[in-house]
Amino acid sequence: MNWQNRPRCDQAPAWALLRAHYEQHFSANAGAFDLRAAFAQDPRRAPDFSLQAPYVFADLSKNLIDRNARQLLGQLARECGVEAHRDALLAGEPVNVTEQRPALHPLLRAPQNDPNVPDGLRDEHLKILQELDALLSFAEQVRADANITDVVHIGIGGSDLGPRLAVQALTEHVSASAPRLHFVANMDAHDLLSALRGLQPERTLFIVASKSFGTAETLANARAALDWFGAGDGVDVAGHFVALTARPDVAAQLGITRCFSMAEGVGGRYSLWSAIGLPVAIAIGAAGFRALLAGARTMDRHFATAPIATNLPLQLALLDVWQRDFLGFASRCLVPYRHGLRLLPAWWQQLEMESNGKRVDSHGRAVPAHTAPVIWGAEGSNSQHTFFQMLHQGTQTVPVEFIAVREAGHPLASQHRQLLAHALAQARALMVGADHADPARQFPGNRPSTFLLLERLDPQTLGALLALYEHRTFVAGSLWGIDSFDQWGVELGKTIARAIEAQWGQPGAGDFDDSTSALLARLGG
Amino acid sequence: MNWQNRPRCDQAPAWALLRAHYEQHFSANAGAFDLRAAFAQDPRRAPDFSLQAPYVFADLSKNLIDRNARQLLGQLARECGVEAHRDALLAGEPVNVTEQRPALHPLLRAPQNDPNVPDGLRDEHLKILQELDALLSFAEQVRADANITDVVHIGIGGSDLGPRLAVQALTEHVSASAPRLHFVANMDAHDLLSALRGLQPERTLFIVASKSFGTAETLANARAALDWFGAGDGVDVAGHFVALTARPDVAAQLGITRCFSMAEGVGGRYSLWSAIGLPVAIAIGAAGFRALLAGARTMDRHFATAPIATNLPLQLALLDVWQRDFLGFASRCLVPYRHGLRLLPAWWQQLEMESNGKRVDSHGRAVPAHTAPVIWGAEGSNSQHTFFQMLHQGTQTVPVEFIAVREAGHPLASQHRQLLAHALAQARALMVGADHADPARQFPGNRPSTFLLLERLDPQTLGALLALYEHRTFVAGSLWGIDSFDQWGVELGKTIARAIEAQWGQPGAGDFDDSTSALLARLGG
Repeated sequence: MNWQNRPRCDQAPAWALLRAHYEQHFSANAGAFDLRAAFAQDPRRAPDFSLQAPYVFADLSKNLIDRNARQLLGQLARECGVEAHRDALLAGEPVNVTEQRPALHPLLRAPQNDPNVPDGLRDEHLKILQELDALLSFAEQVRADANITDVVHIGIGGSDLGPRLAVQALTEHVSASAPRLHFVANMDAHDLLSALRGLQPERTLFIVASKSFGTAETLANARAALDWFGAGDGVDVAGHFVALTARPDVAAQLGITRCFSMAEGVGGRYSLWSAIGLPVAIAIGAAGFRALLAGARTMDRHFATAPIATNLPLQLALLDVWQRDFLGFASRCLVPYRHGLRLLPAWWQQLEMESNGKRVDSHGRAVPAHTAPVIWGAEGSNSQHTFFQMLHQGTQTVPVEFIAVREAGHPLASQHRQLLAHALAQARALMVGADHADPARQFPGNRPSTFLLLERLDPQTLGALLALYEHRTFVAGSLWGIDSFDQWGVELGKTIARAIEAQWGQPGAGDFDDSTSALLARLGG
Repeated sequence: MNWQNRPRCDQAPAWALLRAHYEQHFSANAGAFDLRAAFAQDPRRAPDFSLQAPYVFADLSKNLIDRNARQLLGQLARECGVEAHRDALLAGEPVNVTEQRPALHPLLRAPQNDPNVPDGLRDEHLKILQELDALLSFAEQVRADANITDVVHIGIGGSDLGPRLAVQALTEHVSASAPRLHFVANMDAHDLLSALRGLQPERTLFIVASKSFGTAETLANARAALDWFGAGDGVDVAGHFVALTARPDVAAQLGITRCFSMAEGVGGRYSLWSAIGLPVAIAIGAAGFRALLAGARTMDRHFATAPIATNLPLQLALLDVWQRDFLGFASRCLVPYRHGLRLLPAWWQQLEMESNGKRVDSHGRAVPAHTAPVIWGAEGSNSQHTFFQMLHQGTQTVPVEFIAVREAGHPLASQHRQLLAHALAQARALMVGADHADPARQFPGNRPSTFLLLERLDPQTLGALLALYEHRTFVAGSLWGIDSFDQWGVELGKTIARAIEAQWGQPGAGDFDDSTSALLARLGG
């Protein structure tokens, strides 16, 4: 099947079959599917709804799904040509159709002499490998430079969340001699100013990360950082500032002459693997960064080769579409039971909501189904003491995704055991519920969850986990027929912000709505 | 009206009228309400849907609501006896009916000789004032103790988020001489171990915060902290550990003899104003903490006295119910355009979802309406580069709550102007949308938002803002007829966690479902 003329999910025969199956077995008037009964009736449910992918074991059995639905979802994937679309992604075809570009993040993970790099991408791949060598050699140079005690990474969105998450997650892999890492994103200057507190210009390296070098927040913070650096008698801007950008010409206008580049085909939220990963490489070293890429590559190969039935990113995406468009769940909640993964919900939120939060397909037609839900969550066990009340006893069903890591990575074994017991217990409690004479203490149960299990939290595993989420998002977008690699929805706000800024301090000026005008008068009057 | 026999929202005559009004003017088949048309037709819409409360200005005009709906919602509040219920809360009646307790957080904010403290609460109030004096004098003593450079606050849920948020939000009000504050919550020992890195026992004060002193995470972390302290030749446990608890007897069993107490009627998520606020008092000083209480008290008085039509917590709660139960919005998104308020979404998430994420009313009957939605969000401008794509162009409408602060609190005026322009621009963009020849660049608009505006971010304002959210949550819970002050939904998970822990390392043991057993074998086998 040609990837450019694939049917959208709702046009595939399996879609109507799924609708009928849902109505017959899952809708409220069908006497709704019950997880407890499903387990009682099927002793093979737990193993048969579990999958082992590289570095990630997944138990999907505590979801509101049966074998027939799963089989129809597999049929849906085939009818929608998801495999052809995946192959096109991996072959560097212009799958970002509204911008007429490929999405090259998987290529960033391919090692030297990788036989799976398609011939048409060999030149691009060689360029990537050269850029990577230069980047990692610079990272090692910074790590070895005893003069540099602090690195301030300025970037926002995709130029911020990926590296910030990776540095947090791999904190045990950061050598004690590595400089301290600080991340600054917000237009609110409090973010930058609090990061600079206590730093000395001559001992600080600034990384300015913006693919276009036109991001308002990043430019404003970079200019403020340059002012701060200059005010501290810093003159060696070239030695203390480095840009990560596809537009070194624009960076040079600010006096930033050392640049590391990325291909145009690498989108912001997929850019951790590119030069944007510099702070990660500084934190964990060149070998660590290569291990991160290798883990992601292993997941790429799983995605590329595993059959639909055992392909984890594919199966998770099919479940996502089932939950959004048939079960009607408006959000998904992610709870990693690991302090180092506390940013993962925010990272996944961007990945899924920016990639698939769209109303029209790549041919410009309205999608007659719901696309990306709200992604939210927070680390366990903390969130047991915040929002889990609602997950257990609220009126709305929210599917939860748990992540647990078998190895503690610290010596306090008893606390780790308790942590894991809590993760298992919450997933079980959501499903089994509990009866009680007092209705306030009853738990309805039958609430779905997915359980992901990692062996340990190291660079390889993190790389594989993030690549898993990337491909899952791609597959869901593919089924919905949307371009997961553009983000036109961020443009209007920028345009209006410029118009408002131009009218600042001139009450009554500007052709805004009454509410905006009144607020502008209060704020800028 | 007697607060104990108030009708639930769906039993009030206004509910059916609201349903009819919704069907006629807001439902899809009615040709749905359009915000742009509403502004065009009503030049008084912006001012008339705006409210000034102490420290907080609120513009509700860009919401999917009209004058008739608002009037019917006011009628609903009256018919449901919300004012009688509010008076009962403030009078210390046992409004936490399932636990037969009052909810005393407003009393914690009443100053000495406050004429509004009801006679029946005078003794309790005197006790609170004495405890507050002792707490603040201890906080000042810690601040003045040059020996103590670091304070580690161990607590989780309500014993964590409130103080953590307040210390972050008021960071400009923290004196340079104050000790550094560290917050530890998670059962995952990485949280504690990373906080302890670089600390010296003899220069560290530990605060252990747990009302029951039975919270598993807090006890585990406290024990690990005691071990760390002891291993560093620390013997003066009494001098370096302090407990915030209603059970000093249990704390004493750990050797922690210095305690500050709180009333049984103060719930975890409402406890910032009690002894749980100690880290805040250490950070900003006694005067700062009293200012925080005073700001909250001013909002309490507004809530107590303003008529329904101009009562901000009440009007926000009515809008919340309208959005959840008529417009059908499954979540609300909070975006504070202030780096210091980046934890506010998580704090509000707990407040609302733990208070109102319930299925049965306080008489044990199922509530035939949706209660607390998912609360989520993140700071602006960061989130413009992550999930705003979906807010603008996704298939699901999510009402957004913006918060902006007029005064920068730093000298970089241009960045602050840009920050505020972005906040205004996003709210306007959501509403007005934009047409474009390319469907991928079209914005449907008509997406609702609320805009809260603060003059500056100081202790008074923060106190008022948090009290505003507290009362808003109470009013929504009051309309739904639920007890917003219990949290039975957290119990089942704890019970199952103990059962799982007891079976750890004994594969096949325990009477769990197949999925839990299989995961347990992998994790603990």
